[in-house]
Amino acid sequence: MADPAKFYLSYNQIHKTVKRLSEEIKSTGYDPDVIVAIGTGGFIPARMLKTYINRPIYTVGISYYDENDKPKDAPEKVQWIDEVENKLEGRKVLLVDEVDDSRITLEYCLRELLSHKPAEISVAVLHNKNKLKEGVIPDEVSHYFVGNELEDIWICYPWDAVDIDEQEKMAHTQ
Amino acid sequence: MADPAKFYLSYNQIHKTVKRLSEEIKSTGYDPDVIVAIGTGGFIPARMLKTYINRPIYTVGISYYDENDKPKDAPEKVQWIDEVENKLEGRKVLLVDEVDDSRITLEYCLRELLSHKPAEISVAVLHNKNKLKEGVIPDEVSHYFVGNELEDIWICYPWDAVDIDEQEKMAHTQ
Repeated sequence: MADPAKFYLSYNQIHKTVKRLSEEIKSTGYDPDVIVAIGTGGFIPARMLKTYINRPIYTVGISYYDENDKPKDAPEKVQWIDEVENKLEGRKVLLVDEVDDSRITLEYCLRELLSHKPAEISVAVLHNKNKLKEGVIPDEVSHYFVGNELEDIWICYPWDAVDIDEQEKMAHTQ
Repeated sequence: MADPAKFYLSYNQIHKTVKRLSEEIKSTGYDPDVIVAIGTGGFIPARMLKTYINRPIYTVGISYYDENDKPKDAPEKVQWIDEVENKLEGRKVLLVDEVDDSRITLEYCLRELLSHKPAEISVAVLHNKNKLKEGVIPDEVSHYFVGNELEDIWICYPWDAVDIDEQEKMAHTQ
């Protein structure tokens, strides 16, 4: 039985959400020079997006939840862009993550990237949870693209599935 | 009609290959401290693998093929690990990519990572193409894990699919 508090997604559903997101991004005329994926949640959405918006992907690794899924005091960098940071200056950046939850990680990454003076920066997430946000999207961000607006539920992404057949079944029965 | 020269894969097939790879890795007792994903092909396999082998993922971005899928003179770094490079010293590393084709990218990455003195380094790829290799796996590499051995065919990964329903259909009719 599907747990009503959990929302299961298949890879193909997410691939289609990414396709739709790419069409929305293109419809606004926003044409990024580079994609920056927030790891590890943004790795898969960003790679899917590259099929529709073919730009180099840089990654930043951020750790904000500990091994028990509890938030830490602040996001910590696992990996940062370093030598390519100066490649962001004057470029149009599209920052990609899987979910906008508390918004803390997004704000942290956006402010860090903004400090490297991109020409423009926008954000794309698969899902936004409609909840009280602890972080803010800085005013300098030109677009905020969302695949789907969701309630504050537990989203089960396919890449976290130990049993992908079970995940697929749950994704199609709810 | 499926083109016999092309081999289509679904996300779920790849997820299962990754699960099987993780079991093989564990069966050898190789217990990495960190996963290094070669971008962009290794992003999705590495993130799937994290579900079974939960380690931090660092990424390196390598560009060896141009926009026409022709190899360049040599692999070029799109992004490198930089400030975390010294975190590799004395650690057990698992390098992940989607395919071992000419072996040039793998050799390049392995030699670069070996220069940072990891305690041990192993490689995991979804697929190895049985063909004449232009690169070599350095002797220092302790394990080389392969999901599936394939002939020298054109592999169509799901993340490159413009139409994911069509991809799914092709993956199941061949």
